[in-house]
Amino acid sequence: MESRKASDISAFFEPRTVAVFGSLKETTGAGWGAIRNMLDFGFKGKIYPVNPSGGEIFGLQVYTTVEQVPEPLDLAMVIIPPQAVPATVQQCGRKGIRAVIIGTEGFAEADEGGATLQRHILDLAHRYGLRILGPNTIGVVNTANGLVTTPYPTGYKSFLKGGIAYCGQSGLVSAHSHPMEPYAYPLSKICDFGNKCDVNEVDLIDYLSQDQDTKVIAMHLEDIKDGRKFLEIARKTVVKKPVLIFKTGQTEAGAKAAASHTGSLSGDDRIYEAAFRQAGILRLGNWTGFWEIPRIFASQPLPGGPRVAIISLSGGAGVVAADLAVKNGLVVTSFSDKTKQKLLAFSPRLANNPVDIGPAATVANDPISLSEAIMSVVLADKMADSAVILMHSGLGRAITPLIDMLRRVHRNTTKPLVVWMDGPVPSVTAQLFCELARDGLPTYLDLEAAIKALSLAVAYSRIKSEFSECAA
Amino acid sequence: MESRKASDISAFFEPRTVAVFGSLKETTGAGWGAIRNMLDFGFKGKIYPVNPSGGEIFGLQVYTTVEQVPEPLDLAMVIIPPQAVPATVQQCGRKGIRAVIIGTEGFAEADEGGATLQRHILDLAHRYGLRILGPNTIGVVNTANGLVTTPYPTGYKSFLKGGIAYCGQSGLVSAHSHPMEPYAYPLSKICDFGNKCDVNEVDLIDYLSQDQDTKVIAMHLEDIKDGRKFLEIARKTVVKKPVLIFKTGQTEAGAKAAASHTGSLSGDDRIYEAAFRQAGILRLGNWTGFWEIPRIFASQPLPGGPRVAIISLSGGAGVVAADLAVKNGLVVTSFSDKTKQKLLAFSPRLANNPVDIGPAATVANDPISLSEAIMSVVLADKMADSAVILMHSGLGRAITPLIDMLRRVHRNTTKPLVVWMDGPVPSVTAQLFCELARDGLPTYLDLEAAIKALSLAVAYSRIKSEFSECAA
Repeated sequence: MESRKASDISAFFEPRTVAVFGSLKETTGAGWGAIRNMLDFGFKGKIYPVNPSGGEIFGLQVYTTVEQVPEPLDLAMVIIPPQAVPATVQQCGRKGIRAVIIGTEGFAEADEGGATLQRHILDLAHRYGLRILGPNTIGVVNTANGLVTTPYPTGYKSFLKGGIAYCGQSGLVSAHSHPMEPYAYPLSKICDFGNKCDVNEVDLIDYLSQDQDTKVIAMHLEDIKDGRKFLEIARKTVVKKPVLIFKTGQTEAGAKAAASHTGSLSGDDRIYEAAFRQAGILRLGNWTGFWEIPRIFASQPLPGGPRVAIISLSGGAGVVAADLAVKNGLVVTSFSDKTKQKLLAFSPRLANNPVDIGPAATVANDPISLSEAIMSVVLADKMADSAVILMHSGLGRAITPLIDMLRRVHRNTTKPLVVWMDGPVPSVTAQLFCELARDGLPTYLDLEAAIKALSLAVAYSRIKSEFSECAA
Repeated sequence: MESRKASDISAFFEPRTVAVFGSLKETTGAGWGAIRNMLDFGFKGKIYPVNPSGGEIFGLQVYTTVEQVPEPLDLAMVIIPPQAVPATVQQCGRKGIRAVIIGTEGFAEADEGGATLQRHILDLAHRYGLRILGPNTIGVVNTANGLVTTPYPTGYKSFLKGGIAYCGQSGLVSAHSHPMEPYAYPLSKICDFGNKCDVNEVDLIDYLSQDQDTKVIAMHLEDIKDGRKFLEIARKTVVKKPVLIFKTGQTEAGAKAAASHTGSLSGDDRIYEAAFRQAGILRLGNWTGFWEIPRIFASQPLPGGPRVAIISLSGGAGVVAADLAVKNGLVVTSFSDKTKQKLLAFSPRLANNPVDIGPAATVANDPISLSEAIMSVVLADKMADSAVILMHSGLGRAITPLIDMLRRVHRNTTKPLVVWMDGPVPSVTAQLFCELARDGLPTYLDLEAAIKALSLAVAYSRIKSEFSECAA
């Protein structure tokens, strides 16, 4: 770490050694939980439990003070009562630790006493030249090295490694709150900012813009601490990778709630809207979008333009997708004459967009091959920049051929694809959804999110080239 | 049926006897599939397969012509090639059948030839005084008598009986397309209009307004055939029960798609918007809302006003809910001084709305009892007309106590409640969602749908009293 600059926060994600302060009581202790997670997710660094109790846990020696740890420490995870935090921060400072995550609640988000305590630990941080993430945070995840600092159990023990970094100002943005692995989110990092007394979105966007594993940055924010600096870094970042923000506390009631949640001052939403637009930041409107939309940027090429082909097993779903496409600024393309002729050869009703496969598939001997052939023709048309495929998951009898077919269609095109599906058996729909998502084909249970993802990909494509020209 | 008026469509839902025309080929035949479903779902009437093959199927005698059926028939389900449909309609007419569902595709939605054929069968219907549902429809469901006409397998064999009637202009609005039973939709009827050559939304809304089992009508429509009549009946209906419409084909591209899907002419959306408002019809914006929002009307009392209490395990989710509430016209209420004092006795940070249970629950010995006590205090406050409860489903260890607690909270209040939840293990979240939904507590995986449901309940409460006054 020594060679990096003081503001560098890489130690929060890439520590070789971590001290964990917190109760080691089995199953319920916060320290116990954080260590359990690091072990379960195969953290590649060394873990040093620190607790006055001493002894041993999970085969690791427990140190009664951090001074006794026999080697330099890169990161401390601190989940102890608020009043004990300042002394621990001092000990960390003396030990030379440069990155401290404070999981403890009861600081600025709680009351004036907590705010005073928070200012105090920040003073200590400045004095010792260390950085603080939190307080009131569940910390970070780094899928590259298995670092998972949340003290809460997640129900799973691995992640799908991929390009999405999720940052948030809530414990909802966490491996223990959302099915990161079960729903196959291709993940690089997670960071919960908590109260943001020190490390905030400016540091994160700076770090993630340089992170090779991160292809897209999705942030849930209640406020922005230093707007000018944030927008400046965002502008530079969007040339390299998309920045998607779900800004909450947009209304007076929401802002008031944010103030008592993380001590945030949310500010006027119109100002954020204008600033985000100028900085090339894309906006997400809800939790579903926050989680689902980044998938498209993790695996799909950027569309060459706004012209979308809609391929649907259901005529009614095609109508809804066409409405959504237009409302989100996409163009429901017309196919070239050559494509129309090829489609008409499959069925006399197939020249339009949306391409309603349903009637032809119903009477086909091999509906899966027919669907594949139709999709290939549509995707080969220069009039289409992208496609949304609306499927029915069925009962699971034909699930393997269906998955294989969609994988081939995905592999054989250079255009961005998204899939939406519904079906009568949730476990079958979930299997299809997960297997395709795991394969890098963004698959959605919410049609609005699928179309919105495509439209943001088009928007980002434009932003990327515009901002690159400005920078050149 | 004899005593009812000619326009009565009850035979489509309440037949004592049904003739099924269609291939009886095992597993793939449309007639076979429809009969299989009627048997699986325990249809209480008599089923008469009609097929030139004769013989026997599922222990039922197959009649080579409908004339040979030894008793009067109330309904015919016809799924045979288009060119054969007119002769069958004639036979049905001669047999005295007054209700015919035509499942067959290839009519007005297909081409000019199909449109001519459709006009022809409509002429026949008029000549014989029978009503046609379709063509190009999967027909109906009636949970009261087990009538399920879709030829496609659903993967389940029962429904949760309840107050929602779903009607749509797509096979997506069907037991084989959406997990009606697995996701515990409290269901009375389903009807797919198909091409609406005869029976349409006017007939349906008229029928459903009088149906004792139906408490809320949710319609997916691409067009409205007779606007004046529809709005007139809707105005009368909304005094008794809410009418929710998801109108698609709103954009030019969507309307064009609708024309080639069901031959619909969608018309200018602004006109629909104004007309719906005047008729007291509530509008749904997407598929998720179409399916999920009606739940609140099936089981919850109407809110006395717009003041909502937000009770959340997550501060960040509370902020989002507050934003959504305000954006949807709800008021994030302030609690009475008495309630504030009671809440402060639980924790010094609990007097605000959203009520962030998280910090207190984390350190409580019995977080479930604490949550229940807090919810009871909040729901007793006269300043709150309704509540949204934002939960975390966890790993499943405490799922039974959690479900039981929410059930008690639900049982002990006279105010409308909705629940939203997320969690790391999809199967646990699904279990919580389904068990609560089955118990009549509307539970959502999409926070926007949960808040929108509450806001439409407030809107309907106002509509109901305004329209009742007008009618008085």
